[in-house]
Amino acid sequence: MALLDELAGLLGDELHLSDDARRSRARDTWPRSEFDQWQGRLVLPAAVATPSTTGRVAETVRLCRAHGAPIIPRGAGSGCVGGVLATTESVVISTEGLTGLRSLDPVDGLAAFGAGTMGIDAENRVRQDGFTIGHWPQSIEISSVGGWVATRASGQYSTAYGNIEDIVYAVEAVLPDGSIYRSRPTPRASAGPDLRQLLLGSEGALGIITEVTFSLRPLPEPGVRQAFHFEDMATGFDAVRSVIVPGWRPPVVRLYDAGETRRHFRDHVPQGRCVAIFLHEGPPGHAALEATAVADLCRGGGGEQADPGAVDHWFGHRNIVPTWTELFEQGLIADTIEVATGWGQLARLYKAVIEAINAVPTVIAATAHSSHAYRSGANLYFTFAAQPTDPEEYQSVYDACWTAAMQAATGCGAGIAHHHGIGRVRRTWMADELGDAGVGVLRAVKAALDPDNLMNPGVLVPD
Amino acid sequence: MALLDELAGLLGDELHLSDDARRSRARDTWPRSEFDQWQGRLVLPAAVATPSTTGRVAETVRLCRAHGAPIIPRGAGSGCVGGVLATTESVVISTEGLTGLRSLDPVDGLAAFGAGTMGIDAENRVRQDGFTIGHWPQSIEISSVGGWVATRASGQYSTAYGNIEDIVYAVEAVLPDGSIYRSRPTPRASAGPDLRQLLLGSEGALGIITEVTFSLRPLPEPGVRQAFHFEDMATGFDAVRSVIVPGWRPPVVRLYDAGETRRHFRDHVPQGRCVAIFLHEGPPGHAALEATAVADLCRGGGGEQADPGAVDHWFGHRNIVPTWTELFEQGLIADTIEVATGWGQLARLYKAVIEAINAVPTVIAATAHSSHAYRSGANLYFTFAAQPTDPEEYQSVYDACWTAAMQAATGCGAGIAHHHGIGRVRRTWMADELGDAGVGVLRAVKAALDPDNLMNPGVLVPD
Repeated sequence: MALLDELAGLLGDELHLSDDARRSRARDTWPRSEFDQWQGRLVLPAAVATPSTTGRVAETVRLCRAHGAPIIPRGAGSGCVGGVLATTESVVISTEGLTGLRSLDPVDGLAAFGAGTMGIDAENRVRQDGFTIGHWPQSIEISSVGGWVATRASGQYSTAYGNIEDIVYAVEAVLPDGSIYRSRPTPRASAGPDLRQLLLGSEGALGIITEVTFSLRPLPEPGVRQAFHFEDMATGFDAVRSVIVPGWRPPVVRLYDAGETRRHFRDHVPQGRCVAIFLHEGPPGHAALEATAVADLCRGGGGEQADPGAVDHWFGHRNIVPTWTELFEQGLIADTIEVATGWGQLARLYKAVIEAINAVPTVIAATAHSSHAYRSGANLYFTFAAQPTDPEEYQSVYDACWTAAMQAATGCGAGIAHHHGIGRVRRTWMADELGDAGVGVLRAVKAALDPDNLMNPGVLVPD
Repeated sequence: MALLDELAGLLGDELHLSDDARRSRARDTWPRSEFDQWQGRLVLPAAVATPSTTGRVAETVRLCRAHGAPIIPRGAGSGCVGGVLATTESVVISTEGLTGLRSLDPVDGLAAFGAGTMGIDAENRVRQDGFTIGHWPQSIEISSVGGWVATRASGQYSTAYGNIEDIVYAVEAVLPDGSIYRSRPTPRASAGPDLRQLLLGSEGALGIITEVTFSLRPLPEPGVRQAFHFEDMATGFDAVRSVIVPGWRPPVVRLYDAGETRRHFRDHVPQGRCVAIFLHEGPPGHAALEATAVADLCRGGGGEQADPGAVDHWFGHRNIVPTWTELFEQGLIADTIEVATGWGQLARLYKAVIEAINAVPTVIAATAHSSHAYRSGANLYFTFAAQPTDPEEYQSVYDACWTAAMQAATGCGAGIAHHHGIGRVRRTWMADELGDAGVGVLRAVKAALDPDNLMNPGVLVPD
């Protein structure tokens, strides 16, 4: 195969052809592809490239294009919507060779990292200099900073510190034609459309992110933690709204339904109640002021103070999730589905999606929490589990749960994806999200930048 | 002319062919085109359309396309970079027929307006229901809400409330092919690139914005105003940085150099000093806490408390600007140039641009202030005036001042445009801003969405 010979000449030991190398980069953590692997049906790519410089990424892209080979960009593979899935003729370009701090400017509070740097490593590095990135996705130990950008990720502190698009200062990326784009490093611009936004959420379909510069914050003093429990989600949402609307912005604002409260906080919250947990941080005096105000608002909204150990418990366990394979082996198929909508629709959306999932045969659990709040609304993050009698039914039950949830969510007018992205699992509903004209724009941009459709074909853009 | 007949059939009295109608929509407030008008050289469009519905805008676009006629989208014409400039064969599509509140949702805090609604009318309308848009550009009385989006505008409260991209919830636009795009109204999405961002800053080149939905804030209590004066801009910037970095966010943060302090605040601030003015707002207790902290930080950074009347004076006069023609008649050519950079470069940028402009023959004044602060830097907003002996030299002196300022700014690594946009005056420097790869992306997107280059040709996209 001429392409592999040329790639070997270009990349040397940064090209990997072994079964192990190809198997470990063939997919992300999408339950459907993990199930395929569990069943011994995983398709492997032709090769895995781990170029160690941006220039080598660009040359690898150009070689693949010259040979018409599909390119699968891959970060750390923690995505869960099927954004990475190899085909036999494809070349996975992994950013794992692009790691480490490239620059740190303590005056402007900027840190640039190779895109393959693991999130936790980047965060720990800037903490050495007294900063925080302020972005803490549950995946922080298994995700890369480039992946954060490619998927438009959210972190657990987003209500105060914003999502990844509010934290990224500049990006470098290799475009589908092999050119290298670097956004102008400036705090704000009115210089045409913000082109970084074409890469934020591009899911590998519009380029390979090679470097990310963050606008940092000083590492805050330890914050104030508190929790309140409510009769139901509707009451909890009203209380959270009463906090957000006047302008309070606790970094952590999470509201759990009774099912998840029982699952995660049984030692701290009475059964049947919905718990809201808060972390308050800020400049001197702010956290105390905010905590007092939020406590008054929650109590005024029908909340009862919960054992603050609930928040400590959450901090201690927030990054622990089982693998899908562990669940498969217990006879379970499960997933999470996050969507977002305005305050006025949240209670209805919660009820509609829970009911829709519960109506799917063999479903044994459907629960939700809200983890990100905004001036005009919030997200809802559903978890479902089903227990089909035969593993052969896993995929059809899984698809039925997704369809039920997406139909219920779009029926309520919700956005179809809050922070996990589209990948393959949500592609069917992109026309609901974008409308026909929006799909037309997305297709036109994709065709303009990647006319041969070689960059991560099969994700994001609906057929 | 077949096109005008067909447009008349479609639009009836929403088509305007009189000299007056065409002259009053032929340009924005770019000094170069205002000078041309003053000299009697203004070119008029073939027609002005003021469609009163989004559907009619779409049909007007389709008709113009079918006839190959250039389309000049126009809001209220307050832009100042040459974003609106008619050619003889062009059709101006003005949004002035798309006015008024279309919906207001007090629960989610959302208000949708026709794109041609004047900014001050939109703000006054939401105030009736206890809200504020939180966007107050100096042009608020003469600019439209659609223009805010098309130019990626900033308002005077941006340091707390963000720029237009942080305030817009949803947009509706007619795309170059005549299709109607409506973004999904949702508080946040990870559903591919944020397509709204292609319209924010599109300057009429990628579509006509027809409706804007804002995510509102409750109208705040009257805030706390204070001012401090500093020895020089470098000291002032250090003090402002010391406020912003730990997380304080006064809505108004403005730092004026000695020249502008003398011009605007002579009754309130000693001569030769640089004044910083602050407005503090927020949920109960926040403004007082922040004002005390900011006062300590400013005094600790070498600032002296100024007469708070300085801030009142600014509030009383902030929307007053002379017309360029008034200056032409006094023998002056003048303009403003806003750029942005990181904290570490601001003092150097200030000095470099002021020196560069002052080196242009006949320049009599070059001053600056900073009006928008961010975690990693701030903007600088320069004003220059020159007094050539002959009006025939106005344009060459004007161009020389812009070239001097842009070369100095790009030499310092600054972004070329903070909030006025590109239009025609900055197009030459777009390659500095975007790099070759970025220019390639912008051109590719433009060609994909507007293959015949009929939407506002001549702006934004470099040749």
